[in-house]
Amino acid sequence: MPLTDRILMGPGPSNPYPEATLALGQPMLGHLDPEFLHILDETCDRLRTVWQTTNPLTLPLSGTGSAGMEAAFVNTVQPGDPVVIAVNGLFGERMVDVASRCGAAVIRVDTTWGQPIDPEEVLSAHARPKLIAAVHAETSTGVRNDVAALAAGKGDALLLADCVTSLGGIPVDIDGWGVDLAYSGTQKCIGVAPGLSPFTMGPRAIERRVPRPRSWYLDLGMLAEYASTSGARKYHHTAPIAMILSLHAGLGALLDEGLAAAWARHAECGRLLQDGLEELGLQLFAASGHRLPELTTVCVPDGADDAAVRRRLLEDYGIEIGGGVGAFAGKVWRIGCMGHTARVRNVTLVLAALEEVLAR
Amino acid sequence: MPLTDRILMGPGPSNPYPEATLALGQPMLGHLDPEFLHILDETCDRLRTVWQTTNPLTLPLSGTGSAGMEAAFVNTVQPGDPVVIAVNGLFGERMVDVASRCGAAVIRVDTTWGQPIDPEEVLSAHARPKLIAAVHAETSTGVRNDVAALAAGKGDALLLADCVTSLGGIPVDIDGWGVDLAYSGTQKCIGVAPGLSPFTMGPRAIERRVPRPRSWYLDLGMLAEYASTSGARKYHHTAPIAMILSLHAGLGALLDEGLAAAWARHAECGRLLQDGLEELGLQLFAASGHRLPELTTVCVPDGADDAAVRRRLLEDYGIEIGGGVGAFAGKVWRIGCMGHTARVRNVTLVLAALEEVLAR
Repeated sequence: MPLTDRILMGPGPSNPYPEATLALGQPMLGHLDPEFLHILDETCDRLRTVWQTTNPLTLPLSGTGSAGMEAAFVNTVQPGDPVVIAVNGLFGERMVDVASRCGAAVIRVDTTWGQPIDPEEVLSAHARPKLIAAVHAETSTGVRNDVAALAAGKGDALLLADCVTSLGGIPVDIDGWGVDLAYSGTQKCIGVAPGLSPFTMGPRAIERRVPRPRSWYLDLGMLAEYASTSGARKYHHTAPIAMILSLHAGLGALLDEGLAAAWARHAECGRLLQDGLEELGLQLFAASGHRLPELTTVCVPDGADDAAVRRRLLEDYGIEIGGGVGAFAGKVWRIGCMGHTARVRNVTLVLAALEEVLAR
Repeated sequence: MPLTDRILMGPGPSNPYPEATLALGQPMLGHLDPEFLHILDETCDRLRTVWQTTNPLTLPLSGTGSAGMEAAFVNTVQPGDPVVIAVNGLFGERMVDVASRCGAAVIRVDTTWGQPIDPEEVLSAHARPKLIAAVHAETSTGVRNDVAALAAGKGDALLLADCVTSLGGIPVDIDGWGVDLAYSGTQKCIGVAPGLSPFTMGPRAIERRVPRPRSWYLDLGMLAEYASTSGARKYHHTAPIAMILSLHAGLGALLDEGLAAAWARHAECGRLLQDGLEELGLQLFAASGHRLPELTTVCVPDGADDAAVRRRLLEDYGIEIGGGVGAFAGKVWRIGCMGHTARVRNVTLVLAALEEVLAR
């Protein structure tokens, strides 16, 4: 009988916290029901804690992480605005695509995939950008970029950080670092099903926000009027109730453990996994010293069949790991240890299973 | 002890089918997992049945009904394109806002709220529009608009229908009528939690689609490459897995009953509710002959306190009904009977509860 209860060790989704899964089945509430609005307010508070921010405009957007990316650009960029984007992976590339559709004059600063961006190079790429954007945790390569350094040197520009694969897994300090706006996804280190994008936007970004963005659905001015606790709430669109109940519960589980403890758990799993892969004789892909604990990239060894190995893990063990993307399709595996999946027992299992499959 | 398991008789969300709620708690799957892709394919097939279409480009978008609206305009309208929009309620107004943000030259054709649109007037509003758009079931007023007549007379224009509150509750015949593109929401007559937008786009709309729309997230060209069963699937964004598993199950329940039976059930509930409200001495708001069975608008009687009555229903009975919007806030109630909520027992209950509360 096939194992359809997967152990999700790809680049996301991860296995949700049990509390988050259970919350999905709660009785449905209306999107203006006082019971629901109370849960929504608590969810936004919990997000502020996880983002380490006091930004009032902190909420879950009704779409996946990519909707968060689009919301970030569409609410800050007008045609012709100079936007510097650091690119060292697929999600940096995606930022370029999204920003250029908003009419931005994009200045891209490319770094070899697998290497971290050079903050100095990014900061000196344009004299007066409106926005500087970078991916904190590149899901395509497993590399951590130094967002804190970008924030420290941003000058008059706004700083945007993609925290899809970082939030909840490694420290993200919006206020401490001075990040002006950031988005994440629920299905990685937050440990909730995919479908929502935690979002936060600080006062500098709000001041310079596009007054009537091209997107109605992602218009943060209107969204804030629904999510805000100050003043009368104004209906915008029907909130994705079940997903928000689940996010509320998942964040509850994460904060009961404590942010620092969750980061430590991700760090330990990443270290054990990366050490274990090297002990198997495999070569890690991401540059040493810049590796994410929650997402490990490892080169497919000579003689191994990428797809066949992944299929054996999926079919025989019910374990999902991810393949490479772009130029690295077929050349690397991406092994995630995120959210509830970030447990030592899963690391132990994936290493043993991979060893067995590679030895066949 | 408060009744937090609501009977949802507002304008949406409705109570999901039990099958749809249970499916939310299934083990999480990856968005490229063969098991999940099989369920996604079946979900798209089920949507084709419900839409009554053979359109290959039929899929659930990763956002609510309003994301569907935005996707429809952003993929068909370029700056300066003449777009005729019929407006007789809040969602017609919303279409004007969304289309104008896409740069459309909007020709709006207004009809008094509570009255149906006049198809002849809409069709003659412009000599050569690129797109004609209308709301099939106006959730703000409870009025059914004649989309079939618009489709029959559209000429060279594309016809777009908002079917958020109609799909699954009253007949929607995309291919039979000749509707070029349409969107819906999961949280009304489909009987699933809010969060997805069933979408369909026919060959005429695909031919004229904007090649690189302003929205990356809602770019139907890219979305089709992931959802399509022909050719290699291409990753776009992480699908909202739990919600799609739930939609799959909800559509299964709906189609097990049969579309015609579900329409008949909604029709019966609407008739019983509207007759019952009149027997209570209340006045229906929507024009006779054009009333939706799934959403009934009724005037708040003289001397009754709109908000207090709704609060009593919510707190004492756990029943949610909706208030009016726009100029009709405080003047009408909106009582939904959609999806799994469309049961005679709920009609019986809401009539009895309303009678009791009004008599206090």
